[in-house]
Amino acid sequence: MLSTTERTRLRRAKHKARTDRTELYDLLDEGLVCHLGVVVDGTPRVVPTGYGRIDDTLYLHGSTGARSLREEGEVCVTVTLLDGIVLARSAFHHSMNHRSAMIFGTPRVVTAPEEHEAALRAITEHLAPGQWDTVRLPDAKETAATRVLALSLEEASVKVRTGPPGDDPEDHALPIWAGVLPTRVVFDPPITDPGLTHDLPVPEHVAARVTPERRTI
Amino acid sequence: MLSTTERTRLRRAKHKARTDRTELYDLLDEGLVCHLGVVVDGTPRVVPTGYGRIDDTLYLHGSTGARSLREEGEVCVTVTLLDGIVLARSAFHHSMNHRSAMIFGTPRVVTAPEEHEAALRAITEHLAPGQWDTVRLPDAKETAATRVLALSLEEASVKVRTGPPGDDPEDHALPIWAGVLPTRVVFDPPITDPGLTHDLPVPEHVAARVTPERRTI
Repeated sequence: MLSTTERTRLRRAKHKARTDRTELYDLLDEGLVCHLGVVVDGTPRVVPTGYGRIDDTLYLHGSTGARSLREEGEVCVTVTLLDGIVLARSAFHHSMNHRSAMIFGTPRVVTAPEEHEAALRAITEHLAPGQWDTVRLPDAKETAATRVLALSLEEASVKVRTGPPGDDPEDHALPIWAGVLPTRVVFDPPITDPGLTHDLPVPEHVAARVTPERRTI
Repeated sequence: MLSTTERTRLRRAKHKARTDRTELYDLLDEGLVCHLGVVVDGTPRVVPTGYGRIDDTLYLHGSTGARSLREEGEVCVTVTLLDGIVLARSAFHHSMNHRSAMIFGTPRVVTAPEEHEAALRAITEHLAPGQWDTVRLPDAKETAATRVLALSLEEASVKVRTGPPGDDPEDHALPIWAGVLPTRVVFDPPITDPGLTHDLPVPEHVAARVTPERRTI
């Protein structure tokens, strides 16, 4: 079950709240980018970044020089998946079908080498499944230059909007079309690095990720 | 030209910075969701929401009950477009091709009726072009229930990563495939509201938005 703290409890549109922890995991596993919110000198800063998950821990990484990863104190990590544009009969009820997760907590800087490596693997495999076992792994210098933060998924909320517009009953008689324009992220066929020095085919684990309708025969 | 304040100046990867204001506009016009960062009780909160732009002003809206729109003080609005997954020869150089904008400022609550309406129109038309002139417009009650914030685009930064992986020269000799897996948001054919009481076709301005390869003949 997901927590219901003061921050994660939905005050409005309560029917959009999800409480099953697996919905949080599924959403995080499907998303690619999170938005990390930190407070710097009293003002908010929102930075897009990759992430990875191991069980109930979210991992973030970045350069040891990155300001957003150097701040102490609480963060908010938000992952949003857009599923469609809700076209209502009334301007007021236009909306977006989406799934979003907000995670609150104070991250821990990962220092143990085993966890640091496991986190980098999780982050890389989340972004690019299958790559960790086929590429050159981080050397000591690269590892030292990479800060890893661990954020517990303990305090989190998931909000979901699905389905047709929520027009007022009296508006249903209006002769105005209404519906949803679905949106989706697709992966197009890969573009090989022009600097490739070997004649290598696109690896199977990369080719398999291309959205089926976009695959060339 | 975009500003270069302490917050908008890129400290690292300076080559990713863009300074042309039209790049900010293009990015904002292409994006659909922004992530609004506010500070609530000293801690960050990052909320996904729609937006609209009129010239050099970004408009946000929401319920008058929404906590994220009721806070005073500075905000950070970030819009991120993911263009591809960068698959390098080394784990360290895995990355994302993306365009992202960060806007800093203290929003102004819009109270003048003309600007309030123009903002709602801009936000609706940004999400759903062509809808404002064909749907029922907000009545007095709906207008009163909708808070609109105006944020100047004065202090903003744009960061762009494009192209193949940035592997170290010595890694180019490795027999490892490298390249980019492009990502893209597509619009699928619209789903008509099953509650539609009239036999109406999908409006042309909606049908025209479907990604060409997804159009049914």
